[in-house]
Amino acid sequence: MRTPFPFSAIVGQDEMKLALLIAAVDPRVGGVMVFGDRGTGKSTAVRALAALLPPIPAARAGFQTADAPPPKGKVPVPFVDLPLGATEDRVVGALDLEAALGRGEKRFEPGLLARANGGFLYIDEINLLEDHIVDLLLDVAASGENLVEREGLSVRHAARFVLIGSGNPEEGELRPQLLDRFGLSVEVRTPKGIPERVEILKRCDAFERDPGGFAEHWGVSEKKTLKRIAKGRDLVGAIEVPEPVLTRAALLCGTVGADGLRGELTLMRAARALAALEGHRTVEATHLDRVAPMALRHRLRRNPLDDSGSNARIERALAELAA
Amino acid sequence: MRTPFPFSAIVGQDEMKLALLIAAVDPRVGGVMVFGDRGTGKSTAVRALAALLPPIPAARAGFQTADAPPPKGKVPVPFVDLPLGATEDRVVGALDLEAALGRGEKRFEPGLLARANGGFLYIDEINLLEDHIVDLLLDVAASGENLVEREGLSVRHAARFVLIGSGNPEEGELRPQLLDRFGLSVEVRTPKGIPERVEILKRCDAFERDPGGFAEHWGVSEKKTLKRIAKGRDLVGAIEVPEPVLTRAALLCGTVGADGLRGELTLMRAARALAALEGHRTVEATHLDRVAPMALRHRLRRNPLDDSGSNARIERALAELAA
Amino acid sequence: MRTPFPFSAIVGQDEMKLALLIAAVDPRVGGVMVFGDRGTGKSTAVRALAALLPPIPAARAGFQTADAPPPKGKVPVPFVDLPLGATEDRVVGALDLEAALGRGEKRFEPGLLARANGGFLYIDEINLLEDHIVDLLLDVAASGENLVEREGLSVRHAARFVLIGSGNPEEGELRPQLLDRFGLSVEVRTPKGIPERVEILKRCDAFERDPGGFAEHWGVSEKKTLKRIAKGRDLVGAIEVPEPVLTRAALLCGTVGADGLRGELTLMRAARALAALEGHRTVEATHLDRVAPMALRHRLRRNPLDDSGSNARIERALAELAA
Amino acid sequence: MRTPFPFSAIVGQDEMKLALLIAAVDPRVGGVMVFGDRGTGKSTAVRALAALLPPIPAARAGFQTADAPPPKGKVPVPFVDLPLGATEDRVVGALDLEAALGRGEKRFEPGLLARANGGFLYIDEINLLEDHIVDLLLDVAASGENLVEREGLSVRHAARFVLIGSGNPEEGELRPQLLDRFGLSVEVRTPKGIPERVEILKRCDAFERDPGGFAEHWGVSEKKTLKRIAKGRDLVGAIEVPEPVLTRAALLCGTVGADGLRGELTLMRAARALAALEGHRTVEATHLDRVAPMALRHRLRRNPLDDSGSNARIERALAELAA
Amino acid sequence: MRTPFPFSAIVGQDEMKLALLIAAVDPRVGGVMVFGDRGTGKSTAVRALAALLPPIPAARAGFQTADAPPPKGKVPVPFVDLPLGATEDRVVGALDLEAALGRGEKRFEPGLLARANGGFLYIDEINLLEDHIVDLLLDVAASGENLVEREGLSVRHAARFVLIGSGNPEEGELRPQLLDRFGLSVEVRTPKGIPERVEILKRCDAFERDPGGFAEHWGVSEKKTLKRIAKGRDLVGAIEVPEPVLTRAALLCGTVGADGLRGELTLMRAARALAALEGHRTVEATHLDRVAPMALRHRLRRNPLDDSGSNARIERALAELAA
Amino acid sequence: MRTPFPFSAIVGQDEMKLALLIAAVDPRVGGVMVFGDRGTGKSTAVRALAALLPPIPAARAGFQTADAPPPKGKVPVPFVDLPLGATEDRVVGALDLEAALGRGEKRFEPGLLARANGGFLYIDEINLLEDHIVDLLLDVAASGENLVEREGLSVRHAARFVLIGSGNPEEGELRPQLLDRFGLSVEVRTPKGIPERVEILKRCDAFERDPGGFAEHWGVSEKKTLKRIAKGRDLVGAIEVPEPVLTRAALLCGTVGADGLRGELTLMRAARALAALEGHRTVEATHLDRVAPMALRHRLRRNPLDDSGSNARIERALAELAA
Repeated sequence: MRTPFPFSAIVGQDEMKLALLIAAVDPRVGGVMVFGDRGTGKSTAVRALAALLPPIPAARAGFQTADAPPPKGKVPVPFVDLPLGATEDRVVGALDLEAALGRGEKRFEPGLLARANGGFLYIDEINLLEDHIVDLLLDVAASGENLVEREGLSVRHAARFVLIGSGNPEEGELRPQLLDRFGLSVEVRTPKGIPERVEILKRCDAFERDPGGFAEHWGVSEKKTLKRIAKGRDLVGAIEVPEPVLTRAALLCGTVGADGLRGELTLMRAARALAALEGHRTVEATHLDRVAPMALRHRLRRNPLDDSGSNARIERALAELAA
Repeated sequence: MRTPFPFSAIVGQDEMKLALLIAAVDPRVGGVMVFGDRGTGKSTAVRALAALLPPIPAARAGFQTADAPPPKGKVPVPFVDLPLGATEDRVVGALDLEAALGRGEKRFEPGLLARANGGFLYIDEINLLEDHIVDLLLDVAASGENLVEREGLSVRHAARFVLIGSGNPEEGELRPQLLDRFGLSVEVRTPKGIPERVEILKRCDAFERDPGGFAEHWGVSEKKTLKRIAKGRDLVGAIEVPEPVLTRAALLCGTVGADGLRGELTLMRAARALAALEGHRTVEATHLDRVAPMALRHRLRRNPLDDSGSNARIERALAELAA
Repeated sequence: MRTPFPFSAIVGQDEMKLALLIAAVDPRVGGVMVFGDRGTGKSTAVRALAALLPPIPAARAGFQTADAPPPKGKVPVPFVDLPLGATEDRVVGALDLEAALGRGEKRFEPGLLARANGGFLYIDEINLLEDHIVDLLLDVAASGENLVEREGLSVRHAARFVLIGSGNPEEGELRPQLLDRFGLSVEVRTPKGIPERVEILKRCDAFERDPGGFAEHWGVSEKKTLKRIAKGRDLVGAIEVPEPVLTRAALLCGTVGADGLRGELTLMRAARALAALEGHRTVEATHLDRVAPMALRHRLRRNPLDDSGSNARIERALAELAA
Repeated sequence: MRTPFPFSAIVGQDEMKLALLIAAVDPRVGGVMVFGDRGTGKSTAVRALAALLPPIPAARAGFQTADAPPPKGKVPVPFVDLPLGATEDRVVGALDLEAALGRGEKRFEPGLLARANGGFLYIDEINLLEDHIVDLLLDVAASGENLVEREGLSVRHAARFVLIGSGNPEEGELRPQLLDRFGLSVEVRTPKGIPERVEILKRCDAFERDPGGFAEHWGVSEKKTLKRIAKGRDLVGAIEVPEPVLTRAALLCGTVGADGLRGELTLMRAARALAALEGHRTVEATHLDRVAPMALRHRLRRNPLDDSGSNARIERALAELAA
Repeated sequence: MRTPFPFSAIVGQDEMKLALLIAAVDPRVGGVMVFGDRGTGKSTAVRALAALLPPIPAARAGFQTADAPPPKGKVPVPFVDLPLGATEDRVVGALDLEAALGRGEKRFEPGLLARANGGFLYIDEINLLEDHIVDLLLDVAASGENLVEREGLSVRHAARFVLIGSGNPEEGELRPQLLDRFGLSVEVRTPKGIPERVEILKRCDAFERDPGGFAEHWGVSEKKTLKRIAKGRDLVGAIEVPEPVLTRAALLCGTVGADGLRGELTLMRAARALAALEGHRTVEATHLDRVAPMALRHRLRRNPLDDSGSNARIERALAELAA
Repeated sequence: MRTPFPFSAIVGQDEMKLALLIAAVDPRVGGVMVFGDRGTGKSTAVRALAALLPPIPAARAGFQTADAPPPKGKVPVPFVDLPLGATEDRVVGALDLEAALGRGEKRFEPGLLARANGGFLYIDEINLLEDHIVDLLLDVAASGENLVEREGLSVRHAARFVLIGSGNPEEGELRPQLLDRFGLSVEVRTPKGIPERVEILKRCDAFERDPGGFAEHWGVSEKKTLKRIAKGRDLVGAIEVPEPVLTRAALLCGTVGADGLRGELTLMRAARALAALEGHRTVEATHLDRVAPMALRHRLRRNPLDDSGSNARIERALAELAA
């Protein structure tokens, strides 16, 4: 509908942009949770990334079942912004009431999970959603399929998407069990430097006045970013993770005390995707170290004897490993 | 229906009237939140402004979809006063139940958001609404479109309106995250001077006895106000915001400590609209300074070490910048 | 149905009777809130007043829309006693379900607000109603029209009535914001004198044994009261409120510290109606002073430094003005 | 269905039986609230009284509207025991859904209030009912008509019945405002004397073994009671309450400090009915004194400076008057 | 369906078995409440007793109305185990929705209360049910008929059954008012002796391996038990309760301080049934004493000055009577 | 759909794997409750076991009633993962609304309990489910049949499955009464050794890259496991539990203080299944001792005088028996 703000024109916010690019290269890293102040452009960035990606085969997007022949051609990468007030019925899909009441036919009306298939599902202020919906979204994102058991329906369909949540920790937190199921997490902050803030005002002003011209101006940068993603996707399937890197991942998780194994599995996958994004054919320790904060930050328990924050604890653990 | 009280005949309340005029010149400043005592004429002012504005093209008002040819002619500026007890269905629109049950047809029944398209949506005592509805109203106001995902419907339609909320802080406050999404906020107080209060009584008395005559009496003032708005609308697209003014905006927000970037974006837009309203072709520091309280007041965090109110803090910051 | 107790036969309770007569002369004073002990004849008085008034044109009573030609003839003054358990649907009106389901027709089924049009709406124990219903009733009473936005309906119809609420402060109070929207408030107490109580028992006994005879006995008094109301209604449109009286109203409100302007507007209107009821052609200070308690009592904030009741504070303020 | 236990065979519980007889003579005294321990035969007594009374004209029982010709003949006195789990729909009556959905006809389905018309409505453990239902039942009992405003229905029908509630104060109390609306209240206790308890066991045993024979055995006593009621009904319309007795009622209520006027009105009515029941043609002070506890007990406020119970306070007041 | 565990093969738990046999002889003793640890075979025993009893006439089982001719032949004794999640509709019966919607016919769909008619209704963990359902079940069990007033239905049908509840006092207790309405209560405990526990393991093992053979092995014991019940039923109608025994019942209840009269009525009935079960033609003091704990235990108030348990208090009272 | 991770390739977690194998050999041991940290492969293991088992006769899987001839052929072992948000209707089955509304036919729509028949029902985070659903699932699992009493339906069908629940004790516990009804419980922990963690990463990596190849690689191990299960199933019916072993079970339960008899019954059954799994024809004390922790751990009360954990108390009891 409206011209989106170009991904490349976003000022700063490097960690968020990197996490989104990694998820674009390999969705298996799991969703991305964005923590941060209000008004820092979180949804702008996600929307920009989706608009940047090239169209995908129609057969891999939206609602597809084995019953019907797959559609042909290409469609834009789906981007679904879960609207507040969307009912659970509309999220997971539901019985088509008109068909049921009018014609006595039991038909499935696909929901937003079906529409997000092949793209992105963005949930602003995810911490305000009810736990059981978040749980459901994470289940579907992890398994890549939506299994509906409601109102006499029993339907299973592909629902492969990158789940992006955003939330302000001041307004309440997700349960640790839910956080743990996000692959990556990033923190965004209001930029503090005056020049950076003036630069943002200028770009917003320019975009507001002439969206088309602004987009054209940033076209070259956008194409470069797109190329990096495309190359990363090609490479990621073939990249090896050498045993020392795996050991480093296990040691790191052990040192910071992450529960369960999701931490090291995510480290492995994110490091692999980062290597691919940067054109490497093997994962190195530096790849691992660079993604460590975003892969582990949200998995640490509060340590009553150590009141340093998650970031500090991860950095200290990395420093110890290096030593 | 009933003759509205003329906008120009409102005694005092200058800040509220200015904010409404700015929003009328450029709706992109975002909605206006009016804080204040009960019985101070808040809804009278909003209703008066809507009645003052000239008719708009029918094709830009109400419910319009790409499916049908746009209507011709002009219609009055829509003014929707969200009635208490309006159901969520009526706000966002819903499935037309009669069509669905009677004819097995799935038709969208537009709601109040559609009806407000092109005009004003006024919500009295907005702090008494449930958070998720306020959130939804702000989302729609910000994006200019209403996206309905309910009851098997998936509809998207234009919903461009200025959102005006009013509330009495004594009866409970909006969450900071919701407040931040209003562009401007103003404070109204019961006038304290006896002559001013007697003047108000006289005008109310005159209006009650002879609404038509009263409106005629104030007709000239009304036309002048209308001209200022019309001129402002013409100018606002072409007005530049010089870099020093942008820097001043960033400095000001940094000094008072507003989170995120909505503060300085609103400052920029409101200063631009004020300049336009007053016939200027470039924004000056004084424009910025004059809108600073209404653009920032509701965005300040409570500072535990500084118990002066928001207004005082903004004035102090302006004084520091000037010094 | 049953013969009502004659208004004139009510023993004592002068303030309540005066407030009802003022509202009968000019409904623009706003509703009347009756505070008081249980079993003191509150609903008996309201019912009696409605029965006393002469029939009104059918075209100004009940549900009337622009679609149909107005009915002819006269009907008794409507008196609606909001029954406990009346659903919101029945209060505001709702979709006619039978028509919708049976014939696929979307028809409005008028509610109690429509039925009260042209008369009185009485709500016993209003403090037990949910806030949003009270708010809605006050909105409709103030605007004189009922705007329904529910179940796919969008209907607007005249709903001009005097709203009378009663409540026992011991059982919970209305929010100040709701109280403020009642024009007048009165207090009724159990009579303490034995002769007065015996007189009441006698009249009740006589009425219970022979309602018809009792009504006949009080017929002359009833006619006198009716004449006073009729004359008041004739006069009220032409009565002037001199500026000194308006100033006195503003000073009085300033002294007792009423928020907003509803206090002095009500003072002005109630004094005017009282003057009319008593056959005067101009409002004098004494008219204002006599209605001051009922116009202001429910609008005072609790003053932590002054624990005298509302009545005492208003009297003190009147004394200061006089001095 | 099952043979009821004879009213006369109830051992002890004299106050409860007297209150029921008074209500049978003149239902205008208002309902009867029975407080007491569980298992003390409260519902047995009410059921027994209803069974004892002679049949009434069918035209004065059940659901009657002006639309249809009144039925002929006689029917037993209705006795309705409000079953737990009866929905509000079934209590007040509701839309006949089958007629509405099947034939698009809007028909009223009368409820339990209609069925109780002309007889008794018994509510066991009334303190467990929701307040708004109790309020509604009391409203209908007091006005003698049921006004239904629900689901698009607006129906008014006669609903004259004696409301009997029972409750155990240990399980929660009714609000004072609800209690006050019961005409009389009585207290029942587990009998403490062994001979009395053995007598009860014997009668229950005899009744359980041979209900018919037991009823026959008590037939003579039952007829005597019935005669007293019939005579009382004949007399009550013509009995005068002399002014000294009215004064005594007012003094008594003043001394014990009952709010409102329901106390003395009930005293007057109950004393009149008692006089009638005992064949007197004028009310004497002793009649008043004998019904004072049951008419006032539930209307006293708790006095923080006087911790004697309601009964003691009423007796003390009676003694003072006598002195 | 599955072969039930034989009643006679239950190891220990003598009080529970005796209470069930007494209820089988004379259902008028009221239901049985079983308190006890989890996993102690409570439901096994009730199920076993129902399976043991001989078939009953079909006309006295299930749903029977006066409208249709009674069915012929015999059916097994109904045993209904109230499933968790059974809706109130299914318990009491409800409108047959298919008939209503499809054919516009108002038909009653009998519920579990109708199905239990003539047999047993077992409710595991009755303390987890909502109070109003328990109340309803007790009402129906006590009156022997189910009166349905819901959804426009008004149906009355026989529902004579023995209500058996079980509950673990650690998980919450029933209100005293509900407990009081159970005729008898028993306590079951985990057996403590090793030989007894090994014996239970052996019998369970044998039953699990070969249910049919196990049942055959216990057939003779089962028949003996059945004969005792049958003889008891024949006798119970003719057994007298001599006055000294009634006096003893009253004295006992007075001594332990049971509220109301249900205690001594139950004592009388249970002693009579026990005498019948054991072939006596008159009730003796020992019969009374043996059933005293199960008839009174759940009817004692907690005595703040006496912290001995209910059982100890009953035994002490029996000892005093004997002395 | 997707290739499951092979059961044999799971690193560590021996207790969980043993409990699952025991339940596979003899479902009568009751369900398995898995306690443990998030991300430790709980659901992977259950899913793997179900995939490993050989197909079963179609007539013993899914929804089967006596009304229709049983289906022929074989089907895979059902594995149902209760999706979050599955409604109670979908779990137990419900009225087929389309059939009811469209054709006026009352048809049962089987639910997930029917689908799990013959296989496994897995509930992740069972402690987040409402108690009444857990209770219902345990009832059905224990009785092997689902009895539906809802919406006018009364259906009974076979529902034999092994119930597996998982939960993190940090997020809230099941009530003891619910826990007690699980046959076995196991604890899983995040592995602490670096080599073990690296091994897990390697296997996950290998499986992610090439699921098919990975499955083939582990095929031999899988077949061995399957053979052990098959042999165990053949043997378990014929294995004797000698009296000394039963006595040991009773003594052990007595020593640790398990309430009720479920503890020793489960010990007996689990020891028998373990013996079968390992090819023995008689149960020995060591079998009993090895299953004691998983059979008793969740049945111990917290002992206020003994703060050692459940595991320590069971081990101590075993040591005492040995001594």
